[in-house]
Amino acid sequence: MKIGLCQFRVELEKEKNLEKAAKLLKTAAEAGAEMAVLPEMFNCPYDQEYFPVYAEEEGGRTTNLLSRIAREEGLWVVGGSIPEREGEKVYNTCFVYDPAGNRVARHRKLHLFDIDLPGKVTIAESATLTAGEECTLFTAGDCRVGVAICYDLRFPEYARILSLQGADLMVVPAAFSNVTGPAHWEILLRTRAVDNQFYTAGVSSAPNPSLSYLAYGHSMLVDPWGEIKGALGEEEGVLVGTVDPARLEQIRSELPLLAHRRTDLYQLSSCGL
Amino acid sequence: MKIGLCQFRVELEKEKNLEKAAKLLKTAAEAGAEMAVLPEMFNCPYDQEYFPVYAEEEGGRTTNLLSRIAREEGLWVVGGSIPEREGEKVYNTCFVYDPAGNRVARHRKLHLFDIDLPGKVTIAESATLTAGEECTLFTAGDCRVGVAICYDLRFPEYARILSLQGADLMVVPAAFSNVTGPAHWEILLRTRAVDNQFYTAGVSSAPNPSLSYLAYGHSMLVDPWGEIKGALGEEEGVLVGTVDPARLEQIRSELPLLAHRRTDLYQLSSCGL
Repeated sequence: MKIGLCQFRVELEKEKNLEKAAKLLKTAAEAGAEMAVLPEMFNCPYDQEYFPVYAEEEGGRTTNLLSRIAREEGLWVVGGSIPEREGEKVYNTCFVYDPAGNRVARHRKLHLFDIDLPGKVTIAESATLTAGEECTLFTAGDCRVGVAICYDLRFPEYARILSLQGADLMVVPAAFSNVTGPAHWEILLRTRAVDNQFYTAGVSSAPNPSLSYLAYGHSMLVDPWGEIKGALGEEEGVLVGTVDPARLEQIRSELPLLAHRRTDLYQLSSCGL
Repeated sequence: MKIGLCQFRVELEKEKNLEKAAKLLKTAAEAGAEMAVLPEMFNCPYDQEYFPVYAEEEGGRTTNLLSRIAREEGLWVVGGSIPEREGEKVYNTCFVYDPAGNRVARHRKLHLFDIDLPGKVTIAESATLTAGEECTLFTAGDCRVGVAICYDLRFPEYARILSLQGADLMVVPAAFSNVTGPAHWEILLRTRAVDNQFYTAGVSSAPNPSLSYLAYGHSMLVDPWGEIKGALGEEEGVLVGTVDPARLEQIRSELPLLAHRRTDLYQLSSCGL
């Protein structure tokens, strides 16, 4: 399966963000991608103050656009994430659409990002957002896909649960900061892939110097051996790569890590699946 | 706490290996190390056929040597690993001695290394070894230390268990191959450190071209931010670095990952602790 990683600078104006998202999804489809992935909070500046302001319910303008493009382009659309309003609550939510435009999955970020690196980056998502309660997978053709949003990537338990549920690919819409990104983005994506014997697709927004929060960019596709199959820098663009079932089969056969787990000594249990 | 990572080429002759181990442990102590760590199977060529041949019971020549050096040098000695015989069984075992020469921990490798990379590396530890049944931690002064042997490093569950049991440092005697080493050694050591907010000390044997199995070398100390604090190449030598409680405190306070785990959604349980 060919997958397009769509990286762009999120702007202050929602309208511009929707235009960019639509354009890059079409670019991915034209380049042969069967699935395309947008960044975290792709329609809203990454700032806890903006999340409630930009929030929409499912069925609002942003999700309708994603559904329409999926249908028009015959594309699996992993809609990065948006601030999603439901009643009084706002979630950091990824909506996924099949090529007929049906919404087939909804991942609400499980792990809210609260960090305090003095003088570098301070964020408290929990000030305005509510965490999700469910692990999320969907099936696109022969490919089983798990969804993690940004900080979810930092928890090996979650990636492992997705793997044990059969994921061949973990998509990670994200907006790592320009502090944590250089330190951790690549090694986390590579190690999760190696440990769990699946592909990882980390899709970040590109840094926009006119906004308060500087995203890291560097969207990348990693194979189950931990090899980077392609990566962007800080620019806007689409990276198209391949999730290769033969490569998955080869790695899982040569180094059968999941079969070597000592489940007599430890067990990982999960709810919400 | 200052820690010495002792990397050397394992030779065919056990005698030479014991001499090298003794010499490097003393070098580490002279350089101010309070703890020193040897590589996996440091007294025996890494080859499943040799393990039963070189195996010793606890209280044999190799463990007596380690205990004596610990006492003479006033050093915590993490004895890499040796093939340990107990009755009919042979384990891949790390013995740990305190500065009085008392054996304070024994880790038997939990995950046996069975891999088949055609034309590159094929190993079946399970052909001659028996796996351990216990997770292993000990306390050296103020430092809580978890022990993982080589392939144990590949299982995020085990590192997480050590972390939840309070590990400040995970020592990893190892002999990654010259195929898997370049691909995975560094990112595994760094990601386990970042995920679990502890130091990792990966201590490998150096490659010996006259033996059948080529170890990767590249012993390294990684801090809880994933920064490599020091690393060797393929040479023999001792790397001395510091496990800094202030750095542990800083990282755990700025990015409190362990507190952000969604234990309402997943649980990792373990036996043998």
